Amino acid sequence: MYEGVVADLIEELGRLPGVGPKSAQRIAFHLLQADSEDVTRLAEVLLQVKARIRFCDVCGNVSEEERCRICRDPRRDPSVICVVEEPRDVVAIEKTREFRGLYHVLGGAISPIDGIGPNELRIRQLMGRLASDQVTELILATDPNLEGEATATYLARLVRPMGLRVTRLASGLPVGGDLEYADEVTLGRAFEGRRLIDV
Amino acid sequence: MYEGVVADLIEELGRLPGVGPKSAQRIAFHLLQADSEDVTRLAEVLLQVKARIRFCDVCGNVSEEERCRICRDPRRDPSVICVVEEPRDVVAIEKTREFRGLYHVLGGAISPIDGIGPNELRIRQLMGRLASDQVTELILATDPNLEGEATATYLARLVRPMGLRVTRLASGLPVGGDLEYADEVTLGRAFEGRRLIDV
Repeated sequence: MYEGVVADLIEELGRLPGVGPKSAQRIAFHLLQADSEDVTRLAEVLLQVKARIRFCDVCGNVSEEERCRICRDPRRDPSVICVVEEPRDVVAIEKTREFRGLYHVLGGAISPIDGIGPNELRIRQLMGRLASDQVTELILATDPNLEGEATATYLARLVRPMGLRVTRLASGLPVGGDLEYADEVTLGRAFEGRRLIDV
Repeated sequence: MYEGVVADLIEELGRLPGVGPKSAQRIAFHLLQADSEDVTRLAEVLLQVKARIRFCDVCGNVSEEERCRICRDPRRDPSVICVVEEPRDVVAIEKTREFRGLYHVLGGAISPIDGIGPNELRIRQLMGRLASDQVTELILATDPNLEGEATATYLARLVRPMGLRVTRLASGLPVGGDLEYADEVTLGRAFEGRRLIDV
């Protein structure tokens, strides 16, 4: 349906997550009619990303330097480490402004079906940090799904001998959501974790 | 929230049509973790698109040569020209395999509010083709909205003296749709254009 380079562009765009064939076509035609500078800028930033982005030596978050912005920040509390699966989880938590400690990015969750065991994750590096640092609390913020829960349980057992406070983020009803639309598991968790109201 | 080049990437991706901040972030993290070759290939195809794509001298469709694939094809019927707004409309019509004539891409529709009048569209080129070619039918396939209808009416009046058969694509209920979900204008058009059933 398309000639040479337009077909290539639509194919490459269609590989991106969340971009279906219709969106790829729409973006391609937008780019065909966009200013040359705009398209060149996008192409250049793509090339720079791969050249300049690396992962933080300490926590595994994306970074342009050996240590990421958060690990370099002296105002962060080094006694609390929050364990997440992916760099985008760090961003989600940072947006809440609720957490002032440091992170540890595992690079995924334990998932035997995908061939991902503890050795494929940055667990050895985490153990190293716990051994040498002044950490008192480990917050397990892996995803609230099967793989995330398994990973949290695995880590909780692994660090138990170290005598740390190990916590897990609360599960429950999403704020602003409708009770009737919550799935049974979430609703069950919300009951389990119910809290006394102070009046 | 993001450092240098990651922020740049998310910003550039967010400029693409249909890509909101969440999608931009998701695509960016996908690219950060993707193979270098994949990202380089996307960047290169973006640069090539701007270098190699031009618009067909005859019909205004996207092309890598002076004349596009359709205008070069000797099997296409040069007696019928289908007028569309954008190159992506050509693709949509080609997919139906219903049309074997040639196209003329206007590059938009008349829209005084956006400052687009007849002179901003490829109407002069269309008149040139109608004067010199053996065209017998002009199909006005501009969008079925205010601007598209205005453009179709304008063109129909303009070419009236040439004695061509001028047609407009049918409006009506979308096939596979639900009558109750059709808007009033579409339903009204469907009544207006109702056809006798041959039994």
